[in-house]
Amino acid sequence: MYSLEELQDKVTTIIESKKFEKQPLSLYEPIEYAMHQGGKRIRPLLVFLAANMFTDDLEEAEYPAVAVELLHNFTLVHDDIMDLSPLRRGKPTVYQKYGINKAILSGDVIYAMAYEQLMNCSEEKIPFLVKTITSVLIKVCEGQAYDMSFETRNDVSIQEYITMISLKTSILLAGSLKMGAIVANASKENMNILSEVGLYLGIAFQLQDDILDCWSDLKDFGKVSGTDIADNKKTVLYLSALDKASEQDRQRLIDLYTEKNIDVQKKIAEVKGLFEKYEVRKDVEFLIKQYSEKAIESVEKIDVEGERKQNLINLIHKLLKRNR
Amino acid sequence: MYSLEELQDKVTTIIESKKFEKQPLSLYEPIEYAMHQGGKRIRPLLVFLAANMFTDDLEEAEYPAVAVELLHNFTLVHDDIMDLSPLRRGKPTVYQKYGINKAILSGDVIYAMAYEQLMNCSEEKIPFLVKTITSVLIKVCEGQAYDMSFETRNDVSIQEYITMISLKTSILLAGSLKMGAIVANASKENMNILSEVGLYLGIAFQLQDDILDCWSDLKDFGKVSGTDIADNKKTVLYLSALDKASEQDRQRLIDLYTEKNIDVQKKIAEVKGLFEKYEVRKDVEFLIKQYSEKAIESVEKIDVEGERKQNLINLIHKLLKRNR
Repeated sequence: MYSLEELQDKVTTIIESKKFEKQPLSLYEPIEYAMHQGGKRIRPLLVFLAANMFTDDLEEAEYPAVAVELLHNFTLVHDDIMDLSPLRRGKPTVYQKYGINKAILSGDVIYAMAYEQLMNCSEEKIPFLVKTITSVLIKVCEGQAYDMSFETRNDVSIQEYITMISLKTSILLAGSLKMGAIVANASKENMNILSEVGLYLGIAFQLQDDILDCWSDLKDFGKVSGTDIADNKKTVLYLSALDKASEQDRQRLIDLYTEKNIDVQKKIAEVKGLFEKYEVRKDVEFLIKQYSEKAIESVEKIDVEGERKQNLINLIHKLLKRNR
Repeated sequence: MYSLEELQDKVTTIIESKKFEKQPLSLYEPIEYAMHQGGKRIRPLLVFLAANMFTDDLEEAEYPAVAVELLHNFTLVHDDIMDLSPLRRGKPTVYQKYGINKAILSGDVIYAMAYEQLMNCSEEKIPFLVKTITSVLIKVCEGQAYDMSFETRNDVSIQEYITMISLKTSILLAGSLKMGAIVANASKENMNILSEVGLYLGIAFQLQDDILDCWSDLKDFGKVSGTDIADNKKTVLYLSALDKASEQDRQRLIDLYTEKNIDVQKKIAEVKGLFEKYEVRKDVEFLIKQYSEKAIESVEKIDVEGERKQNLINLIHKLLKRNR
């Protein structure tokens, strides 16, 4: 069995050593740029972690590991266009650097490259892997569609928000764990439990991200703080505040999220003030605790020796203490 | 064996009967719209034609047939954003009707749906089919990247143009024929010859498209005539005219393609005038004849009874006499 650090090193080595630049450069340079901006690379790590629960031979896990990182970057490249995000991991987003057209097209190829990776696996596993990654992608896009539709809706519930982030974030974490289990020939039952782990972990992870977007430093987080507020994203913080606020504050929050002629920095400060007044951060931290406990309970149900589960449990704890 | 008309009807029935609308509507309504705008549906027809050369059981061919039509529509939805095309098949393009964001996201899902279709095929064929469609998609995107890069280049040769359209157009026709051959258990050799047919046919088809874009009626063609000229697309007509024109006309043509403050209708008329002065249409028609003859010569090399090839030969003749 590998240690968490060894697996993390494996991921870094594999992704960093991949070369994406070839002709035409106008297409592949943005791909090289997107893929080598660092990032946490949690998804390929989850592939290796899941595979390593059942086998010490991680050779085949490399392909779905690279595939999920490609898929993740594909969604980032396209989402950043849709969300008009200027920064990602502290650097200009692909569309900011290369323009919308190249970002669309490069994103499309990154997606295809994910399938290319899976083609390196043993033939009998390919159908199941392809089925998994395809269903993941469709659900991630459904999540993004819900997310965009929330921007113009005023009646989003916390439950709907959780469903949206399960689609947009959890499904890919679940798919990563599942694909690791597939290449390691795990049982169907273990695969399903691992998908469940990914589901809960993803929700906790995204709720954590909402907190970080609001309160972390640019230096650590790599994105501008408060962008969710600037973009009128109805995050769990906003929805919890709406639930708890007095009629007057509630109306003010809605106004702040709809007014167009407002100084962005002032808006961020005032919204954060309201979040703090109603202590919504504490509520969200409670939710995170609940979902991460569910994730760990699920890990414990996996039918494999206890020590084989420890890496995944440690990662869950680590992820939920992160500051970026 | 089926007749060409029977196969065409099969394609129409299958594509028209597919329902794409489900939740979230913001994602699936644009897909429904894109997939049910008619179009020539040549690619699924090529899948059936190729399969029907080797078998009368076309049940399995249905999945790659739908997959290639999905893939084609995916490229149209994204290309229309990049090219700012207002009309497609006589109606507003997806991005015009639903906005850029929904067009990007719906396109992504259409692409994933192509893989979903292939998952219905028998398991042992899935790896080869997935490999084929993935490599097709990457090449199509490379072709689109070259196409976009030509817009700002002044030294594009006719040979480079042919290479670009082989990637952008031929590869998907070749892939359609190949996937039909795969599901029909054709020999590797026959598959390769069919890919060759697609390659030549695609070039002839795209050159024909360049002529139609310049001289056909909106009613027949479904797109605004002269858009290639308006968009400064360096089509084969433009490149041939540059090759043949006097120094003065050559410079004028280059100026017309670079000047920004020019009335579009006047520009189209003047460029068409120059195309006519140098009779470039005749040259292109000669090229089309050459490539379609090559396509037919390749069909003749396929190792199957002569009558089984007739449908494909008839389609090639028909496609190159079209007015839309």
